[in-house]
Amino acid sequence: MTSKYAIGVDFGSESGRALLVDVADGREIATAVHPYKNSVIDERLPDSGVVLEPDWALQDPNDYIEVFKQAIPAVLKQSGVNPADVIGLGIDFTACTMLPTKADGTPLCYLPEWRNRPHAWVKLWKHHAAQPEANRLNETARALGYDFLDRYGGKISSEWFVPKAMQIVDEDPEIYAAADRLIEAADWVVWQLTGKETRNLTTAGYKGLWSRSEGFPPDAFFKALDPRLEHMVDEKMSREIAMLGEKAGGLTEEAAAWTGLLPGTAVAIANVDAHVAVPAATVTEPGRMVINMGTSNCHMVMGAEEHVVPGMCGYVADGIMPGLFGYEAGQSCVGDHFAWFIENGVPGAYEREAATLGISIHELLEQKAAKLRPGESGLVALDWWNGNRSVLVDVDLTGLLVGMTLATRAEEIYRALIEATAFGTRVIIETFEQYGVPVTGIVATGGLPDKNKLLMQIYADVSGRTINVSGATQGGAFGSAMHGAVAAGKQAGGFEDITEAARTMARLRAESYTPNPEAKAVYDRLFAEYLKLHDYFGRGENDVMKRLKALKAEVIRN
Amino acid sequence: MTSKYAIGVDFGSESGRALLVDVADGREIATAVHPYKNSVIDERLPDSGVVLEPDWALQDPNDYIEVFKQAIPAVLKQSGVNPADVIGLGIDFTACTMLPTKADGTPLCYLPEWRNRPHAWVKLWKHHAAQPEANRLNETARALGYDFLDRYGGKISSEWFVPKAMQIVDEDPEIYAAADRLIEAADWVVWQLTGKETRNLTTAGYKGLWSRSEGFPPDAFFKALDPRLEHMVDEKMSREIAMLGEKAGGLTEEAAAWTGLLPGTAVAIANVDAHVAVPAATVTEPGRMVINMGTSNCHMVMGAEEHVVPGMCGYVADGIMPGLFGYEAGQSCVGDHFAWFIENGVPGAYEREAATLGISIHELLEQKAAKLRPGESGLVALDWWNGNRSVLVDVDLTGLLVGMTLATRAEEIYRALIEATAFGTRVIIETFEQYGVPVTGIVATGGLPDKNKLLMQIYADVSGRTINVSGATQGGAFGSAMHGAVAAGKQAGGFEDITEAARTMARLRAESYTPNPEAKAVYDRLFAEYLKLHDYFGRGENDVMKRLKALKAEVIRN
Repeated sequence: MTSKYAIGVDFGSESGRALLVDVADGREIATAVHPYKNSVIDERLPDSGVVLEPDWALQDPNDYIEVFKQAIPAVLKQSGVNPADVIGLGIDFTACTMLPTKADGTPLCYLPEWRNRPHAWVKLWKHHAAQPEANRLNETARALGYDFLDRYGGKISSEWFVPKAMQIVDEDPEIYAAADRLIEAADWVVWQLTGKETRNLTTAGYKGLWSRSEGFPPDAFFKALDPRLEHMVDEKMSREIAMLGEKAGGLTEEAAAWTGLLPGTAVAIANVDAHVAVPAATVTEPGRMVINMGTSNCHMVMGAEEHVVPGMCGYVADGIMPGLFGYEAGQSCVGDHFAWFIENGVPGAYEREAATLGISIHELLEQKAAKLRPGESGLVALDWWNGNRSVLVDVDLTGLLVGMTLATRAEEIYRALIEATAFGTRVIIETFEQYGVPVTGIVATGGLPDKNKLLMQIYADVSGRTINVSGATQGGAFGSAMHGAVAAGKQAGGFEDITEAARTMARLRAESYTPNPEAKAVYDRLFAEYLKLHDYFGRGENDVMKRLKALKAEVIRN
Repeated sequence: MTSKYAIGVDFGSESGRALLVDVADGREIATAVHPYKNSVIDERLPDSGVVLEPDWALQDPNDYIEVFKQAIPAVLKQSGVNPADVIGLGIDFTACTMLPTKADGTPLCYLPEWRNRPHAWVKLWKHHAAQPEANRLNETARALGYDFLDRYGGKISSEWFVPKAMQIVDEDPEIYAAADRLIEAADWVVWQLTGKETRNLTTAGYKGLWSRSEGFPPDAFFKALDPRLEHMVDEKMSREIAMLGEKAGGLTEEAAAWTGLLPGTAVAIANVDAHVAVPAATVTEPGRMVINMGTSNCHMVMGAEEHVVPGMCGYVADGIMPGLFGYEAGQSCVGDHFAWFIENGVPGAYEREAATLGISIHELLEQKAAKLRPGESGLVALDWWNGNRSVLVDVDLTGLLVGMTLATRAEEIYRALIEATAFGTRVIIETFEQYGVPVTGIVATGGLPDKNKLLMQIYADVSGRTINVSGATQGGAFGSAMHGAVAAGKQAGGFEDITEAARTMARLRAESYTPNPEAKAVYDRLFAEYLKLHDYFGRGENDVMKRLKALKAEVIRN
């Protein structure tokens, strides 16, 4: 019997990646990245040059199709695998990343009459211009007593589906009227592959206010937001929500031609990048938390029971694994934090030293910071350079650093920033446990675990938990390939379900990070300081961060 | 009639400077700097290589004599002035900088038997190793109900005379026993010039616990500190305290040979660097505050009445000008703050940009920061990188920065640090006014006003007061030359008193900095934020800074 393969395609913020995996043992055979030509559109629209307002972040859907056309043929070529042996294809996407289309799936921004209208384009997850709409949604839901907010930590984000739709109707009602469909980009690319529109449970549940037991909020709620939105779900969305691991359909002739795969190849229901990395990290049961560590951190843990945990991003029944409640939390600034520091806070002398040693500035800082003992810097930071996603759920919080002296060095600040993100993760873990969702261990995935061993050890010391690392170098693409193999089904050489796929394909690295009891003891004291500052600045005792931000906006406006 | 000249010699932390001035109009004719060969001794003693403990800072008294031997001949040579036309010489010094000597003035560290003993050397003002002694002094004074602490903001510093003497007797009683005299370096150099020991009122009053009305604390107090100190004042110091502007004596033959001046040339009673800059900045009356702006800020203002102002460095009757109360406050980290940032927080790209433009990094940051409007950075800092000298009087406070986002740039942090020092100055001004010492205007002197116009404007905007700049480029040396001319007396071509000298010799620059009302309005709001953080972190609500510092010390010890 020949080997069977699955392909996962992971759509990130700047590029898409294809990964071809051996279904029998999870071996990663070939991978290819294709950068989006128009990348993140945050200043001017392509072609027309129309200027965007601050906080906008759009994309060009054609860039996604180009990933299929370039990256999939590339992995086939690299691997030499026969397309007939590729049994399934899965995709995962950033979320909520959404767009308006015609009834046949044509994006409005493809059409000449709408191409120069910003609202016709894809709104990327980090499009933050729908904050007024998010505020209105939260106020309306609270005022009318809707309790779905409880599932989302009490507040929904401007990044999510409904605020983005509200912004369209608020600011460009013609686009709203012209849109037959409003759809997650995740589902849109699956539609382009299969010719069939489906809606995945993950984005519906985590970003679209849907739940298995209640469905979407009632039309009356949408009407209260704006009478024009009353029938949005039936008119432009769908109440048919597909389970993870289901097959969306087979590749169309056209998509087969793009990719070099065979027509009819199984395509899985779409998924979300972070969530698909959970089974890819061997986790299919309650208790172990998977942390996807990259520019931001996404914390996912499953529970057998339903609990309302205040300040978390959300929980969805069947949202990560069928049969379990999938809980999600997040930190909005982790790798971004360190990148900011490298770009804005590291003196030239360090750059020269790194160049002399032939290492990156990150590596130099890690080496220097690793020589410090916990507590030695005398610094504590609040990791809110990009707001706080969990448990305070407040984008208007900002960063804080305390303890500097004339002897403070860059590596001490760098270490304090790492420690702050670890404290933020500990707040999340302890809040979950306090509200009945046990966290028994940690599995790390994403880009950071490979890049920064110091960070991993600090997370172990701060959290007091052993941290394992996912064996998948690309958790998103790997998890998507697993879903592709499940969509193909057992008869085609795939799997019955994700649990079986995980057991066969996924693995952990041999190395792990164990808490050092002495370091833990010092970090317990620093964490107490972090918590005190966290509550003082984050829970209303001193709203200086918000006032400074408001003053800044006022000064810039005038 | 030929012109008459006076020379001022200013002893700084790293070097001494001589300035030759025309007495008729204050024209600065020639200046020369001589760096101390042994600079600040903070690692090992010269010759013996004996290792010093942390926080020590010593000097070699011979380096001061070398300033007389090198810098005075240099200004005579540069100017071509006939030594017979130099009517007087004044000096000013850092304080408290003190040393143990034999009865004839020979420093103990000159003697082979004591040369390898750290306590035999000069303790520089920033020798910070006498903190345990300062703590004991403060506790003892409070416990026994001595109210002299009130004159010094409630707490005296480890930098001052008595803690430094206590450290000698605590740690090396043989040195204490061998010392016939304990003396300020300011008075010691005048002794070397004149052959006559005098004690100046300024260091006695501001650093030596002496006051005109009460003299030194009673022997019983010194006995309570340590029985061996009971008679320290009579045995090793002096109760004869000389007024500012008095003549200490005439140059000895030996000192005349060092300097190239004539024997008998009038030498003024010693003075303190910051204080002597006050009349040099035209201020001889109550109301206008002189701020000496350099690595640290020293704020001096005179009042007609005696007031206890909490948290200030001290006030002394006749301490700056005879007949008035001289009030002093300070900020321990100003220029040092910016130097720290330049060295530790400015990215390599800025260094390259400055090099391309052919300007310093300071200048580049100033240019970039000057383009920002008040409030635009969204940042507020607490300027406590080196503790807080006034009004909290707490060396264990540390720095804080709040408001950072991923868009924060180095010039925004730089500006926030400048603003923080301006807010610190405003706290000092408002505290003085609140306790009955009016501050009607500001005259800036020192190195910073020339270096940073942005800083000057921010101080004007934050304080709401017009800031003039002293015309003397070297306020210390200039003020010392004025005192030299007063010591010479009217008949020799000098002056009756300092007021007359100031009227004739001192002037302000034409340029001044006027508050911008719009900027002031924004800064009032930022100052309110600063104050709230100042009180929260500085007055005991959250002692996180102290706990972090204590933890750091504990971690380093173990």
